[in-house]
Amino acid sequence: MRISELARRSGVPVATVKYYLREGLLPAGELTGATQARYGKEHLARLRLIRALLGPGGLSIARTRAVLAAVDDPATSLHAALGAAHGALPAVSGGAAPDLADARAHLARWGWQVHEHSPALGQFAAAIQALAAAGYPPSDALLDRYADAAGRLARQDVADVPTQSLADAVRFVVINTLLLEPVLLALRRLAQQDASRRRFPAGGQAIPR
Amino acid sequence: MRISELARRSGVPVATVKYYLREGLLPAGELTGATQARYGKEHLARLRLIRALLGPGGLSIARTRAVLAAVDDPATSLHAALGAAHGALPAVSGGAAPDLADARAHLARWGWQVHEHSPALGQFAAAIQALAAAGYPPSDALLDRYADAAGRLARQDVADVPTQSLADAVRFVVINTLLLEPVLLALRRLAQQDASRRRFPAGGQAIPR
Repeated sequence: MRISELARRSGVPVATVKYYLREGLLPAGELTGATQARYGKEHLARLRLIRALLGPGGLSIARTRAVLAAVDDPATSLHAALGAAHGALPAVSGGAAPDLADARAHLARWGWQVHEHSPALGQFAAAIQALAAAGYPPSDALLDRYADAAGRLARQDVADVPTQSLADAVRFVVINTLLLEPVLLALRRLAQQDASRRRFPAGGQAIPR
Repeated sequence: MRISELARRSGVPVATVKYYLREGLLPAGELTGATQARYGKEHLARLRLIRALLGPGGLSIARTRAVLAAVDDPATSLHAALGAAHGALPAVSGGAAPDLADARAHLARWGWQVHEHSPALGQFAAAIQALAAAGYPPSDALLDRYADAAGRLARQDVADVPTQSLADAVRFVVINTLLLEPVLLALRRLAQQDASRRRFPAGGQAIPR
């Protein structure tokens, strides 16, 4: 299809498609003349991925380029490809911790093996240190509970990865990892509201300030 | 204690403590002279909360002020106080959705009752619409799985809320809601890495690009 049809079918304005081409996010089409190129289904799928990363995903152009480079990397194994895509995603929160010993000890308790330099490991370490600094050091029981919930979700997330093609698998992992995060956090807050209503009904328990 | 001791015990420089006083984040101490004031344990606890919100929590000064106003609000019930603190927290992700019908339908399926204007409801709606736009509309089974995990965590989170005093309860809810979010997301990503390694071992299944 021509660029005008690509724009129409993707719902992305032609000028924006050209911008993605210039920025190297969208691969060039097949040249069919001096000023014309032909685009295919892969371009449509790529456009959808770009829109998801830049829009709801909240990624910068530079970060999107890094994620797409991982998507395009001709990795030697599916696990390596998924790891590269994962590693290119933005951090789940601000800082990373320099001291990973505690975080590694928890992972060892759970029998989890992860990439040595996984950004998520530093983020986990930073998050538990932040809780301690705030006066609420997380107990093993609390972290076990969160690890159990995360582990159940993750095993099913990974079981759902399609294996028809590497491109499909990596695209799925990028979208699924990134866009289900706000789902999970929003649902936790909503469930907390429901649980709070049940535990502390109006007119119930009085509590001193 | 004097401001110098408050600074020493909290690990926050005197100049920063004065900045929080000027910004109205930290309540004034009890005046003991023209230029001296006395501070108590509540000031120490408040400083720890301010540091958690501005630092690992990543909140702006303005947002921190709003959360603290909710913490200080003399609410009529614990549930209302927790709801106010919750509602003042920053969004779990970028946008909010104008159409909440789908999101409400899912909550009804789960029997969850939440605040009518809960920001988390709009964020949940936006997140499922973003997945659909990216070409991965979430199935009921997928959302049920995430709701089940979020519900288990939330029920225990709320069961852990201390009820000795309203101030303690609200402080706990603010810290626990906000600072366990990066824990949950980091653990999901780490568990995904472990699950990917198990499902796609090196030298295992070949996959076409």
